[in-house]
Amino acid sequence: MNAILSPHTLRQAIRAGSHRGNTSGLAAGFVQCNIVILPAAWANDFLRFCQLNPRPCPLIAIANSPGDFTLPPLGDVDIRTDVPSYRVFRAGKLAQEVTDITALWQDDLVTFALGCSFSFEEALLADGLEVRNVTEGVNVPMYRTSIDCNSAGPFAGKMVVSMRPFRAADAIRAIQICTRFPAVHGAPVHLGDPGLIGIDNLAHPDYGDAVSVGESELPLFWACGVTPQVALEAARPPFAITHSPGCMLVTDLRNSQLAVM
Amino acid sequence: MNAILSPHTLRQAIRAGSHRGNTSGLAAGFVQCNIVILPAAWANDFLRFCQLNPRPCPLIAIANSPGDFTLPPLGDVDIRTDVPSYRVFRAGKLAQEVTDITALWQDDLVTFALGCSFSFEEALLADGLEVRNVTEGVNVPMYRTSIDCNSAGPFAGKMVVSMRPFRAADAIRAIQICTRFPAVHGAPVHLGDPGLIGIDNLAHPDYGDAVSVGESELPLFWACGVTPQVALEAARPPFAITHSPGCMLVTDLRNSQLAVM
Repeated sequence: MNAILSPHTLRQAIRAGSHRGNTSGLAAGFVQCNIVILPAAWANDFLRFCQLNPRPCPLIAIANSPGDFTLPPLGDVDIRTDVPSYRVFRAGKLAQEVTDITALWQDDLVTFALGCSFSFEEALLADGLEVRNVTEGVNVPMYRTSIDCNSAGPFAGKMVVSMRPFRAADAIRAIQICTRFPAVHGAPVHLGDPGLIGIDNLAHPDYGDAVSVGESELPLFWACGVTPQVALEAARPPFAITHSPGCMLVTDLRNSQLAVM
Repeated sequence: MNAILSPHTLRQAIRAGSHRGNTSGLAAGFVQCNIVILPAAWANDFLRFCQLNPRPCPLIAIANSPGDFTLPPLGDVDIRTDVPSYRVFRAGKLAQEVTDITALWQDDLVTFALGCSFSFEEALLADGLEVRNVTEGVNVPMYRTSIDCNSAGPFAGKMVVSMRPFRAADAIRAIQICTRFPAVHGAPVHLGDPGLIGIDNLAHPDYGDAVSVGESELPLFWACGVTPQVALEAARPPFAITHSPGCMLVTDLRNSQLAVM
């Protein structure tokens, strides 16, 4: 797959089953989204959870009504087929991983599309900063923290953060750049001593892969889109579907359109 | 003196000699400036020094021509009388401190007004952040660093920084706030380990007073308006005048007018 494919062409390839797996770096310049799909009876609480926790759960779009599998603001999306890989949860437990949810679709399902760090990583790289997980070709390291999310009904839990190390001047620049993008997690929530947010050991992330951290570098921590998945597992809705990690919904929105200035 | 005095009224009081000393906290909401006055033969190099080092030397106004003691963009200023205390340098050495420079004025003197940290401290306080030197009622601690300024003719030297400690989340917020104000030093130039910019001991500032730094706090370092004074001492012009530390030119510009967004 080519980085300069249009999002439409890439979604068509995913829909046809000719592209599978990770969407990182594809359709460069366009927003990719975390996806959460829930029965309508659970959707209002989850919507409140997103609104109460905008840093880890920045809501970019919601389906117009239960059962609607389109997302017009994001392009000609059919959410049943346009994500390369889905995770199906039953009672909060991962039940299966599939490449198409047409057969699982229900009239009461509500789709949520949330911002993803790919957008701000692209902005950091475009500014000439080094993004360690990109340089080292691994998934970004993610950690459960001691930071409580604001709860909404059954949705609750600790914030998950992703970590990228920078030298101080680049850290300051990274904060400036990410501040422009509140719809994709925005500025970091913490920097420096990991212990202050309950992280014992940077070398042992809870999700993703460890990256090297130089002696003159500070770790920067961003609220992470895995947070809503953790809240989802805690809430145990009878049925839920998410994207598989790294296999995002590619949209027609440009990253630059999310910039607040 | 009252914090809500208008800048005009405060300048009149200074001009009349009825207010002397520090201007910190006075005419709240209005820009205060560092002042450098040089013979025209030295002014072009100093102007280039400011343009090459905008973080420590953010130029807000220059007199229209040599000998002109007004600064119309900043209000009805007479620079010979409207600063509470002046330092007079001869051959780069402090020669005297005076409250009026009318008798010293020359037809070839060029006045430079540079942004000052009082403006961004006000923005930080207005956002609910604690500014340690304000809380502890002392001058901000300032340090000579190992960071080279870009030199211009005889003007050269190391950057001087001011330091304010914050917990991580407040540090991130402080960076966001100060980014809006490039005309008053802008975002910090460093944070974290002081040794990385050549500072041995935070408890022993080169200028100003030490402040307490909590165990969970990070020191943030801003480019400081003392930098041009150090460059001036190194350049040794035959004659130069600056404000005395903390005794600034109070202008009619509002701090908010300096915000880039």
